[in-house]
Amino acid sequence: MMMTKETGRLTIPSDTDFLKETQELITRWGADAIRDSDGTKLDTGLKQLAVKLYSTYFVARGYNDFAEKHPETVQSLYLMSDRITATGTTVTIPFMAHYFDQQIRPNYRDDPHEYWEVIDRTADAVVPTTNWSLLPDDDTVTIRQAAPYHEYTVSFLAELIWDPTEMYNHLTNHWGDVPHQIPFDVRYPEAQQFIRDTLRRWLAANPEIDVVRFTTFFYHFTLIFDDQEREKFVDWLGYGGTVSVPALKAFEKVKGYRLRPEDFVDDGFYNSSYRVPSRHYRDYVDFIARFVADQAKILVDEVHAAGKEAMMFLGDNWIGTEPYGPYFKDIGLDAVVGSVGNATTLRLISDIPHVKYTEGRFLPYFFPDVFHKGGDPVAEAKQNWLTARRAIMRKPVDRIGYGGYLKLAAQFPDFVDYVTHVADEFRDIYSKIHGVKPYAGLTVGVLNAWGKLRTWQPFIVAHGKRYKQAYSYEGVMEALAGQAVNVRFLSFADITSQGVPKDIDVLINVGAAGTAFSGGDAWQDPALVTTIRAWVAAGHGFVGIGEPSAIPGTWAGRTFQLADVLGVDQEAGFSLSTDKYQPAPVADHFLTDGLTLPLDYGESTHNVYAFPETAVIAAANDEVTLTSHDYGQGRGVYLAGLPFSPQNANLLLRLMFWAAKKENAFQTWYATNPETEVAAYPDAGLYAVLNNTSAPQTTTVYTTGGQQVSVSLAPEEIRWERIDHEY
Amino acid sequence: MMMTKETGRLTIPSDTDFLKETQELITRWGADAIRDSDGTKLDTGLKQLAVKLYSTYFVARGYNDFAEKHPETVQSLYLMSDRITATGTTVTIPFMAHYFDQQIRPNYRDDPHEYWEVIDRTADAVVPTTNWSLLPDDDTVTIRQAAPYHEYTVSFLAELIWDPTEMYNHLTNHWGDVPHQIPFDVRYPEAQQFIRDTLRRWLAANPEIDVVRFTTFFYHFTLIFDDQEREKFVDWLGYGGTVSVPALKAFEKVKGYRLRPEDFVDDGFYNSSYRVPSRHYRDYVDFIARFVADQAKILVDEVHAAGKEAMMFLGDNWIGTEPYGPYFKDIGLDAVVGSVGNATTLRLISDIPHVKYTEGRFLPYFFPDVFHKGGDPVAEAKQNWLTARRAIMRKPVDRIGYGGYLKLAAQFPDFVDYVTHVADEFRDIYSKIHGVKPYAGLTVGVLNAWGKLRTWQPFIVAHGKRYKQAYSYEGVMEALAGQAVNVRFLSFADITSQGVPKDIDVLINVGAAGTAFSGGDAWQDPALVTTIRAWVAAGHGFVGIGEPSAIPGTWAGRTFQLADVLGVDQEAGFSLSTDKYQPAPVADHFLTDGLTLPLDYGESTHNVYAFPETAVIAAANDEVTLTSHDYGQGRGVYLAGLPFSPQNANLLLRLMFWAAKKENAFQTWYATNPETEVAAYPDAGLYAVLNNTSAPQTTTVYTTGGQQVSVSLAPEEIRWERIDHEY
Repeated sequence: MMMTKETGRLTIPSDTDFLKETQELITRWGADAIRDSDGTKLDTGLKQLAVKLYSTYFVARGYNDFAEKHPETVQSLYLMSDRITATGTTVTIPFMAHYFDQQIRPNYRDDPHEYWEVIDRTADAVVPTTNWSLLPDDDTVTIRQAAPYHEYTVSFLAELIWDPTEMYNHLTNHWGDVPHQIPFDVRYPEAQQFIRDTLRRWLAANPEIDVVRFTTFFYHFTLIFDDQEREKFVDWLGYGGTVSVPALKAFEKVKGYRLRPEDFVDDGFYNSSYRVPSRHYRDYVDFIARFVADQAKILVDEVHAAGKEAMMFLGDNWIGTEPYGPYFKDIGLDAVVGSVGNATTLRLISDIPHVKYTEGRFLPYFFPDVFHKGGDPVAEAKQNWLTARRAIMRKPVDRIGYGGYLKLAAQFPDFVDYVTHVADEFRDIYSKIHGVKPYAGLTVGVLNAWGKLRTWQPFIVAHGKRYKQAYSYEGVMEALAGQAVNVRFLSFADITSQGVPKDIDVLINVGAAGTAFSGGDAWQDPALVTTIRAWVAAGHGFVGIGEPSAIPGTWAGRTFQLADVLGVDQEAGFSLSTDKYQPAPVADHFLTDGLTLPLDYGESTHNVYAFPETAVIAAANDEVTLTSHDYGQGRGVYLAGLPFSPQNANLLLRLMFWAAKKENAFQTWYATNPETEVAAYPDAGLYAVLNNTSAPQTTTVYTTGGQQVSVSLAPEEIRWERIDHEY
Repeated sequence: MMMTKETGRLTIPSDTDFLKETQELITRWGADAIRDSDGTKLDTGLKQLAVKLYSTYFVARGYNDFAEKHPETVQSLYLMSDRITATGTTVTIPFMAHYFDQQIRPNYRDDPHEYWEVIDRTADAVVPTTNWSLLPDDDTVTIRQAAPYHEYTVSFLAELIWDPTEMYNHLTNHWGDVPHQIPFDVRYPEAQQFIRDTLRRWLAANPEIDVVRFTTFFYHFTLIFDDQEREKFVDWLGYGGTVSVPALKAFEKVKGYRLRPEDFVDDGFYNSSYRVPSRHYRDYVDFIARFVADQAKILVDEVHAAGKEAMMFLGDNWIGTEPYGPYFKDIGLDAVVGSVGNATTLRLISDIPHVKYTEGRFLPYFFPDVFHKGGDPVAEAKQNWLTARRAIMRKPVDRIGYGGYLKLAAQFPDFVDYVTHVADEFRDIYSKIHGVKPYAGLTVGVLNAWGKLRTWQPFIVAHGKRYKQAYSYEGVMEALAGQAVNVRFLSFADITSQGVPKDIDVLINVGAAGTAFSGGDAWQDPALVTTIRAWVAAGHGFVGIGEPSAIPGTWAGRTFQLADVLGVDQEAGFSLSTDKYQPAPVADHFLTDGLTLPLDYGESTHNVYAFPETAVIAAANDEVTLTSHDYGQGRGVYLAGLPFSPQNANLLLRLMFWAAKKENAFQTWYATNPETEVAAYPDAGLYAVLNNTSAPQTTTVYTTGGQQVSVSLAPEEIRWERIDHEY
């Protein structure tokens, strides 16, 4: 008698004229859903198979007939011109310079003298509208009575005449002379009506589709190209493209004040999520999220009325849907699907609340960039799976899937085998741990300006890109995403309004001075610093990484406003006259026990020095990089940076347990070899030891009560064991 | 017939019971002056020799009878206590903690509730005097109605009961149970009278003394020890120790407003010269300098009335004498003597205006730390001489000298020979170039908050100490001090009030963001940035090193406020969303022609990126470190740091000529080997090629009109040549 292998929880793409092969792969992989992809159409024969069918659905692009008939509904955003220096008392600014005129054009429909802003960036002052004039034929603004050698900018309302994703695909794949999809704005009642009617018609015309995969709703994240057809600006979290004159008017009615163009342009930083968000920008995000939820709910209701499921793709036109925001639940979605690049993005998807299921789209796409002669799709798939698997052990997505051209993948038998392995392993994990609370040694709160709203999203600019100023901090997210700890994201406002939540053992503040993630001016608020000080002193832990609690250029005599808790501060150049007498590094310490030195701090942080009573654990070049400091009954721990690596993940775990004074509980469900990890599920009577690498690993596993066992693991192995209560 | 060797211009110490040997060394070295030193007395026989006699004279210490009889005249300063965290609503601050009670004691005479300040550093607010009380017996302040987990400090007026220099010597040399010299304050009329009377008596009693060497006048630079008898705070330029209640009252009368303790305590930074000076602190420096000049003039007049010369030692109690300040000339000094540690300090002395002569005290001191069995005083002397000689070639001091115990030096025949060589070489140089204008290829203005007042003094904390946050900038001073350029020190106020002076070819702004040397908030002034922009655009050069024109955390969208001129800016973390597209480094460039790569930037500067139109000359790790940018008819040049080295000095010279667009004149009186330099004196028809090392060097010397000649130099050689007008 054979055990029936479990199937399902897997979505795959198909292809035209590929019915038989698709059926074979459905069986082989145990797939239970088929999706279309950009550039593929599902074979009509598929509709007869016993699988769910997903169909991509675009709401606000791909209907140029409507957009051209209703040109007032084209989407807009505020853009800033180049900074142009006046050399005399008149200066002309060609504000479209360095923008891509196929993507954007100035909005001359809404009165520029009411909705644009000319700013003297040298005096940081708005130029009176009477002092500038516009030449629409030239796309120029001319300023009179300019101050010589001041820099001026024009903030102009621009129309987005090409959907950014379609533009990217078009330019990347050289689609040539095909019409550009014009995105239109759901803000306008006629657009709302059109979107609803179109969806209704589509639902009626596609009875075989089970799942409507919205890609996505209304507003694309900010993605602007330059006049050389290259990316000029990208912000995966940017609300720039949601603005319009009706939106500004509605905002004024709802929030009671009027926004300026500069509220969007923001010194040219466009409210990047690295910026400490202004009150105006927070209000605007809230305003748009409320509106998007309301509008999306209308569509989801239509889908449900048609007897189908509504799924949202977490990307592209996702702005305003913030899955961790206050209005997401109101949309009523059945599911969210997102792209999995690593453990962090897996958790970003799997932790989304208020949906029936989540789905992770795994790499590689079945595209020719990887699936070509000499390509190694298995290597990319392994990397992707091993990276994400750690996070699945903490909180699994409910389904996995792939995208692209199935015909391509089918030509790589090793890859077909590997997907079989991944699907089986995923289903096995899921069957064992779904709904089971994993063991967590402590609860950590990641503290920044955004808090819960941007759960798992700190340090993102564009999905999957590595930034010099981010990777040394992003490692914290990546480590946490797969570790045996509970993770909460807390905002400064959470702390000042409600105190540190009871369940938190340790707070982490990580990032560069002045950014939303470190906190900037938030730290001038005595309510914030005193709440944390009192809480640490009462026996909790504070871990600062990079420039925690820092105010650029010092405030009230400190750079780090929690220098007293951390026992370190950063020399801003003003206290060189004060002798520092830094302690010599301690020889051995729990925090670095068994780790290979020197540690890797990535870009590291410079000019940090320790106070005399601080334990210096690592230092070089007259800078401390790892320290511990007793503060009342608690501890403050400082680290100069944490790019992701297995060892650094282990280091972070140590930091948290030590700071929380739970170091005696550290060796519980713990594997000593940093290339391996343990996930335990006491309620299910199971634990698993993971080999996160493609090489064999030996590790000592601590279970409970100090019991240990040596385990040798095959490459990539997950070793499941029953929890033997004799341990 | 023999040439009579020139003699003179040399001051040496003597010793007791060492008359014959002193006479021999006078003859051997050609000395023409004898000085006493701390711990030596001049032999009475010396008075018969045909040399000038210098006597050290202390004005405001060493008269404990007076100080003890007039305890109200003891010198004071404001000190800040430790930052103490309130854990409840009452907190007690032991404000003397970590201070050295033999050096300072609280001033309880002047009402602490009027003259002290208790500050809530967490709220950055003054605690009302009604909320704190003082327990003098315990040296504690107790605050009521404290806010829990706020940090509090006490700024208290402290009496300085031990002269810092004497304290340092006492503790270093273990002088044991001898009375501590109490410094008293010339602010008090009875002290003024005592000082004058004492000097009169001394002058009458010491008719044989030719030169009264004031060491120095009234107020010591700030030097505070801690409770472990170690240096706690040192600021060679600190005005802290000049304050008193009468001074505060006089200030209020003169300047029209009252100073607070915090004007001195300054967040605990005590107005370090790295701080952008507040208006209050500038006013106070001016106020003290005026007062010190007035009081010093009284003493100098007495010296002159006695037929003697008045010399000031540039150090110890020199505060308020600022030799480059507006009141220095009023003192009427004949001479200044200072310690020479390198080229910068040589120029600091030799450029002092309004005196008949300057004297540089060279190293090593004749002290047992160097002059012991196995010691190598010649090595230190060579290093000192070769380092300073470059600067002498630009502007010689008028005399050189040594200090310490002559008996010790006499036991080292090699050293005696080396001093003979130094003295002869110095006199030879002096005879040739004194009063002759050296060739300068251009004029550079060093631009910072202090300007001329702190000529050659940027980046100093304590004389001769190397600071991690200073050395990468101090190299600029050291390079300039010996180079064929005219150097002016300009303040931001100079630029905004009068524009860039006509003679300036290139401005240098060098330092860390937010400091007085970079400039901090000064760069928010449109008058400053526009004046410089217009001036560069008109065809001049701006060289930025480190974080030039930077405002920590950005302002109006920029970190470097002259980013447009420099063609680079520093990523503060807010513009990651903007693609940078930095240019690839150019293969060859004038700026690095012949230099060994990679360059040494010392601590370097991070996260600087170039604009697309900027020429990147050096870059690594996604940061640019050397760039050039055309701005109008001029140029902006950026460099990440410049610790001193011969190659970096050459690099700086290149930067200046290039920025000033005078690169075609670069090879004029120029030596290609960075270990060698050329000093030319067209008016004297002479030029000299210097070997700055103790190894032989070969170099190509460019004279004028593109003429070149190869020169081989012996170790340390100066090769003098006549300027042949056929070149």
